[in-house]
Amino acid sequence: MLEKIDLSVGVDKDVYKAAMEEMEAKLGVLQRSCKEAKIPVMILFEGMGAAGKGIQINRLIQAMDPRGFSVYTSNRPTEEEQFRPFLWSYWTRTPAKGRIAIFDRSWYRRVQVDRFDGLTRETELLSAFQDILSFERQLTDDGTVIIKLFLYISKEEQKKRYKRLSASKETAWRVSDSDRQRNKEYDRYLQINEEMLERTDTEYAPWTIIEATDKNYAAMKIMSAVTSRLEYELAKRSEEKEGPARTVAKTIPSDRYKNGVLSGIDLSKKLTQTRYKKELNELQKRLEILHSELYRLRIPVVIGFEGWDAGGKGGAIRRLTSRMDPRGYQVNPTASPNDIEKVHHYLWRFWNNVPKAGHVAIFDRTWYGRVMVERIEGFCTEEEWKRAYQEINEMEAHMANSGAVVLKFWLHIDKDEQERRFKERMENPAKQWKITDEDWRNREKWDLYEEAVNEMLVRTSTTYAPWIVVEGNDKYYARVKVVRTVVEALEKKIKEVRKAKKEK
Amino acid sequence: MLEKIDLSVGVDKDVYKAAMEEMEAKLGVLQRSCKEAKIPVMILFEGMGAAGKGIQINRLIQAMDPRGFSVYTSNRPTEEEQFRPFLWSYWTRTPAKGRIAIFDRSWYRRVQVDRFDGLTRETELLSAFQDILSFERQLTDDGTVIIKLFLYISKEEQKKRYKRLSASKETAWRVSDSDRQRNKEYDRYLQINEEMLERTDTEYAPWTIIEATDKNYAAMKIMSAVTSRLEYELAKRSEEKEGPARTVAKTIPSDRYKNGVLSGIDLSKKLTQTRYKKELNELQKRLEILHSELYRLRIPVVIGFEGWDAGGKGGAIRRLTSRMDPRGYQVNPTASPNDIEKVHHYLWRFWNNVPKAGHVAIFDRTWYGRVMVERIEGFCTEEEWKRAYQEINEMEAHMANSGAVVLKFWLHIDKDEQERRFKERMENPAKQWKITDEDWRNREKWDLYEEAVNEMLVRTSTTYAPWIVVEGNDKYYARVKVVRTVVEALEKKIKEVRKAKKEK
Repeated sequence: MLEKIDLSVGVDKDVYKAAMEEMEAKLGVLQRSCKEAKIPVMILFEGMGAAGKGIQINRLIQAMDPRGFSVYTSNRPTEEEQFRPFLWSYWTRTPAKGRIAIFDRSWYRRVQVDRFDGLTRETELLSAFQDILSFERQLTDDGTVIIKLFLYISKEEQKKRYKRLSASKETAWRVSDSDRQRNKEYDRYLQINEEMLERTDTEYAPWTIIEATDKNYAAMKIMSAVTSRLEYELAKRSEEKEGPARTVAKTIPSDRYKNGVLSGIDLSKKLTQTRYKKELNELQKRLEILHSELYRLRIPVVIGFEGWDAGGKGGAIRRLTSRMDPRGYQVNPTASPNDIEKVHHYLWRFWNNVPKAGHVAIFDRTWYGRVMVERIEGFCTEEEWKRAYQEINEMEAHMANSGAVVLKFWLHIDKDEQERRFKERMENPAKQWKITDEDWRNREKWDLYEEAVNEMLVRTSTTYAPWIVVEGNDKYYARVKVVRTVVEALEKKIKEVRKAKKEK
Repeated sequence: MLEKIDLSVGVDKDVYKAAMEEMEAKLGVLQRSCKEAKIPVMILFEGMGAAGKGIQINRLIQAMDPRGFSVYTSNRPTEEEQFRPFLWSYWTRTPAKGRIAIFDRSWYRRVQVDRFDGLTRETELLSAFQDILSFERQLTDDGTVIIKLFLYISKEEQKKRYKRLSASKETAWRVSDSDRQRNKEYDRYLQINEEMLERTDTEYAPWTIIEATDKNYAAMKIMSAVTSRLEYELAKRSEEKEGPARTVAKTIPSDRYKNGVLSGIDLSKKLTQTRYKKELNELQKRLEILHSELYRLRIPVVIGFEGWDAGGKGGAIRRLTSRMDPRGYQVNPTASPNDIEKVHHYLWRFWNNVPKAGHVAIFDRTWYGRVMVERIEGFCTEEEWKRAYQEINEMEAHMANSGAVVLKFWLHIDKDEQERRFKERMENPAKQWKITDEDWRNREKWDLYEEAVNEMLVRTSTTYAPWIVVEGNDKYYARVKVVRTVVEALEKKIKEVRKAKKEK
């Protein structure tokens, strides 16, 4: 969920001031309403070190009645806590009905900092995740609102902040050796956090990722996340009481400050034809060998292709497969579901094409249609596509658990490039079949798609089945990136499998 | 869930015939309605070997239109299956809308037979359970009805049946060496099945345990489980379409043939005073030593007491604690919740009394109030108490995962014995405080309580936190059984902990 997010977002001071003023006033009212409605609220601040958790908690509580909330800091477990189940201290701190409990770090320590530090063993991890999920579900079922915020900054930004803090005597104490260690091993720590977010982003207690490079932007997004969620919960409860007269969404609405991915993609990347030919040739040769290696080691491979119309999926797939043994791979094109497919679960037809161990299944368009075209065209309900992120993650996790390599490519081009390609297709008799009225119609919905794609990339890029956004304006660059990514992923997997076999 | 169930239940032939005839006619109609309503249905037959899965499937399908269902048998995974994720073959067999798929063994193989045979490694187990839960949740969310039946017979009954089958040439081939092995190691296999049922008994796809000693009884219960579930699902869907005019329960109703536990308890068990004194004295001495051992090894212990009014909880607790170091245990009496407790989750007050590692927490009445008095008196909604079984199991699992011994005693007496004790209390000035009008009122609801207790014992007796039903008509016998059970459980745990420490 994290690495793809565009951390460069910021906000003008004037916009910030105006927005905050409005939301702060609203928050005061909402707090009183929650008190009257006897709704217990838990707000969790998690995130990377030096992302500004303390500052942000302070800004948030400025607008609240201090008699109505408590702030808890979760440090390393005390002796009292170590001698009890890890959720004990959080159960005892659950807020009474109508009160707000704010946590600077929370029960997530267990699967994050404490995991990084080796205090939580890997064998305890799965049951810790299960315990966390039950805990949050039990509280939610009982009416508690759980708002989970993850404050995110980059490695460089974190380093800069630690440096600044360390430079002054007054603040140097705030940077500990473990903080420095986590910056040094930022990638490992990020991976741990990614896994935590993947496993605990639920319908009833979803995460909100806060881009925290710009502190004002972060404050604004936090305020917006909290107020919009409380508004939603109050509306839902009043609907439950008074009957379905008002129309309240059945699922928690996503925040109006969305995480961007596509905005951060550099589409100017290019390759010359000479380099393209050389690199592609080299990579294809490696892939040919890897392909037979896969077969011997019985590793299944699932590769999905999505992207803008005319984004270059077909061309990339051809370059990928051109030297692979055709008995060892299959390309599955995905069109609208047929009659048989329509009377089954939407994932059923993809399950039918799950590759055998040792084989490669390539999908030209995929199960992600659910959260793109089906979402935008209304072919399924809002509840259905919102549920789909988890369903898809679970399906991919099941494949990965059975030993599969799972990769998903988003072939990205900009609107101008698409227009150029559409026109080229119309003018070229050999390519005319590729362009239909529907393509032009979809193009009109570019912004809706962009929003859906951003959400999809954030919510379904996982450690076990990552999304790769391919800079596609230059076809040479794009094709080489696709083939290289596959080659490297296979090499990594083959190495792991060999190592595991040796250890046996 | 299993070991406490009374397997001696049976049915008269006449009752059976009449009931089946009626239900078979109903099933035919329901099948057609499900087809019209486009509901996909999956019926799973799991259970102990020789429990009669084949026969029962046959009886069930007699009443159905053969064009509308398919029967699948799940044997050991074929090569095609082994080379794919284990849910693949079940995904591909999910029924189309309006069709019924019946499974003779199912995806549960993976966490049951295949686990017993060592084909599923213990490290793969937790993720297999997660995959199963997601699979069933995804299908249910999409409208599939999943009916899960577990056919249960005792070790002796199984042995008898294998013997009978082996005796004749025509049927001997049906008993395999693995069948014999599972009978030999019945207890280990039972434990594996217990764990499977515990982990996968969900609100959306609950298990029904079928007592399968009497084949007619089993057939009747299966038929009843299937028809009542389909009726419920049809009603729910028509309510969703036409608005909440009719009143359909929010949760799947439990079957009218309930599993009995208390009916199988032998209340005539007795001890003489001499033996009582001798045994109790011996056990208490052992307990004294164990208690300080617990402290050194930092093992937390949670012991809950429930039972009929005047069942002897107080007396048993006194005998249990009389020689324990008071600094190392605490008795927590549970009364109606106070004002502070009322504005928190119902489990909150018990979480506050979770023992520190090395300490013993005894609860005189417990969190089980939720599924007994609160259920019967309507202090919580039906949804709330139905949800509570899972919540309680999760809380106890969390404690057990953190290293705790968790035991729960049900002090059982019959109605006559209760009356005798009530009267004795009224006549004895020193005991009069113990008896109130409420006790007499509760007594009038004996049958309702018995039903609730039976359900509670089946659904919350787990491998990690078992219920012990104590034959309580004779106080001597009861007290010795309580203290002995605690002593033996602690000895077992201490042995395990010592072994684990040595291995480190």
